[in-house]
Amino acid sequence: MRSALTHLACSKCDAPYDADTVQHLCRCGAPLLASYDVEAAARTFTPQNLAAREPSFWRYGELLPLRDERNRVSLYERMTPAFPLTRIGAATGLPSLYMKDEGVLPTGSFKARGAAVGVSRAKELGVKAFAMPTNGNAGGAWSAYAARAGMEAVIFMPQSAPAINRLECVMAGARVSLVDGLISDAGRLASQAIAERQLYDAATLKEPYRVEGKKTMGFEIAEQFDWNVPDVILYPTGGGVGLIGIYKALRELQTLGLIGKRMPRFVAVQAEGCAPIVKAYQERRTESDFWPDARTVAFGITVPKALGDFLVLGALYETNGTAIAVSDDALLSAQRNVAAQEGLLICPEGAATIAAAEQLRAQGWIASHERVLAINTGTGLKYPDVPYPQPALLARRSPTGARASEGEAPRLR
Amino acid sequence: MRSALTHLACSKCDAPYDADTVQHLCRCGAPLLASYDVEAAARTFTPQNLAAREPSFWRYGELLPLRDERNRVSLYERMTPAFPLTRIGAATGLPSLYMKDEGVLPTGSFKARGAAVGVSRAKELGVKAFAMPTNGNAGGAWSAYAARAGMEAVIFMPQSAPAINRLECVMAGARVSLVDGLISDAGRLASQAIAERQLYDAATLKEPYRVEGKKTMGFEIAEQFDWNVPDVILYPTGGGVGLIGIYKALRELQTLGLIGKRMPRFVAVQAEGCAPIVKAYQERRTESDFWPDARTVAFGITVPKALGDFLVLGALYETNGTAIAVSDDALLSAQRNVAAQEGLLICPEGAATIAAAEQLRAQGWIASHERVLAINTGTGLKYPDVPYPQPALLARRSPTGARASEGEAPRLR
Repeated sequence: MRSALTHLACSKCDAPYDADTVQHLCRCGAPLLASYDVEAAARTFTPQNLAAREPSFWRYGELLPLRDERNRVSLYERMTPAFPLTRIGAATGLPSLYMKDEGVLPTGSFKARGAAVGVSRAKELGVKAFAMPTNGNAGGAWSAYAARAGMEAVIFMPQSAPAINRLECVMAGARVSLVDGLISDAGRLASQAIAERQLYDAATLKEPYRVEGKKTMGFEIAEQFDWNVPDVILYPTGGGVGLIGIYKALRELQTLGLIGKRMPRFVAVQAEGCAPIVKAYQERRTESDFWPDARTVAFGITVPKALGDFLVLGALYETNGTAIAVSDDALLSAQRNVAAQEGLLICPEGAATIAAAEQLRAQGWIASHERVLAINTGTGLKYPDVPYPQPALLARRSPTGARASEGEAPRLR
Repeated sequence: MRSALTHLACSKCDAPYDADTVQHLCRCGAPLLASYDVEAAARTFTPQNLAAREPSFWRYGELLPLRDERNRVSLYERMTPAFPLTRIGAATGLPSLYMKDEGVLPTGSFKARGAAVGVSRAKELGVKAFAMPTNGNAGGAWSAYAARAGMEAVIFMPQSAPAINRLECVMAGARVSLVDGLISDAGRLASQAIAERQLYDAATLKEPYRVEGKKTMGFEIAEQFDWNVPDVILYPTGGGVGLIGIYKALRELQTLGLIGKRMPRFVAVQAEGCAPIVKAYQERRTESDFWPDARTVAFGITVPKALGDFLVLGALYETNGTAIAVSDDALLSAQRNVAAQEGLLICPEGAATIAAAEQLRAQGWIASHERVLAINTGTGLKYPDVPYPQPALLARRSPTGARASEGEAPRLR
């Protein structure tokens, strides 16, 4: 299981770069992506071999960038389940609706994939400290893996990012700065710190390996669907790296001959309060505009302008996919439905894909016989502030369970 | 992999009960425990067979109560990792310190084990609705599995229980009542509702199957330590069902001949603000007294009087174990250390076991060569309100990235 990594190539102009030194963006400003010797990988990257390996994304070593297993930084990842949403599917007219639940990864989100591979490869390349802007979950994941690696993490996070992510980063020993602004403002401040302190730039797509980690979602999907990929994949899209990663994975599997020519139709799901990809898609453009005054309860997809927007849009066009925006009300309602009917507390971003599936089914864009996979990017446990009905308060002792209390109940610190 | 369940037996007076109808406490008031036909189980419950089965606690089917796999209610559980805490261990003088991380289970805590097996078996016995008091995590887990099973959950929870657990229960569609009081007050109100509405009593140890789910921790530990159990197991003890379960599992494995006569020394870890088991142990008693004015930041172990206290104390005496109380300061400090040094955000209850290991090593009760396993019962993501230093706030645009902000740094909610 040796990495078949050969070089890096620009995602726009195809210019090649050496993969075994630190690299960031191409001279043309576009992200670099990892290239592999597919023939070499094909010799051992087989369904039979894979099935016998450890049940985590590290099993895909030939198509991951890490050269030496001893540089692996791990928090005991697992393959995430892709399971039928039987009741929701029946109610929606989608009997083959599945959800891939990334909330069971370390730090509770799919960001663990990018962080595990990104931090491991950074360690392999000799990096001692990195900086990044984050809306929250990526910062939590990268801080945790940095702690595991003994590496310094310098994090810039909007003040309005979820409190739990701030806690994750600080507890993991990262140097955290809160920013009075959006992720784009945090990005500017991170770039400044990187330039001043010569830190490794770990911002989305500004180093080439985070997407390689996210890619493993695609490998898992192919394996879990027995190398016969679903018809539709719905992905909650902020920076879009997960979608780019899954798409890249499936293209690599096609080159290896492990899946056929048919690709799933990719759906980029955004919130109505921040839908730059949807707008660009509707206008049939190849890049998006900065979305002013972005806001949604699904904080993780509040990305007004993604560096990889052209890659996301490319994947939508090439797979006859689509892009759709859902309201906060619709996604919060979907979140409650999934919890009450399937027993699974998913995150608002993941819930947006369920709301989108319902709408696309109602519009006829998805047919009832199609196999539909929605990606839940994280656990709902990280969103304690979503609205929900408050239960009744009973007194301590009560013959009928209803006598009023004498004293104040103690508050949790 | 057929269940070898034969009957239930009282944990105090040994009176036998039919396992295939709904049962709660013994006539004498003590909990019932499941008994198995060990010879029948031994034919297929072998290390070789087990290793080839699915990587979750369902692999231990012979020694679980579920008769028919079709009644299994699952949220895609996994075996939880037991991994070395290398840096913490080195700093503590315990080079063989391990942590079993239960935070990666569905709903983020070890309560998923008891809920999965308890709800599955209740479903098998025809139960449609249950009630229980909870300090939080058990309610979250039982509500989620109830939703998955299509069963009604009626939950009584102290008003002061963590907000995230309230959210979990309500989102999963449980009927939740908040109680102006402690878990013991919630228990009284639950008992009342159970009597009035003829609900299934799912309170700790009042049905016999939750402990069977918890037991699987012990099976996993034996497998993960290659059937050579650790020297010391530290367990954060509230109701103590996990400790009782691990102890029961290891006794069953001894009967099967899969582990030798040596048992780990069990350590019940409590918080100084609620330490009834520690007090009883120090007085060499077999039962505990109600602990008045119980309070600790480790809310999950705020149990003033546990129904199974005599079983916990029995396990401590029989294994030459001990009981120890740690301060909130010590456990919060251990939580920060584990996050910053190992990259793992554990819960305050789990962190108490690390503080306890440090103290027992310093006292010489644990020797440096011993293999020590600490149980982390849940993810720290469910505790957003633990204290931690707040980061600095940067302005949106700043020429040096270091301009002081005008306002106060925001406090964590």
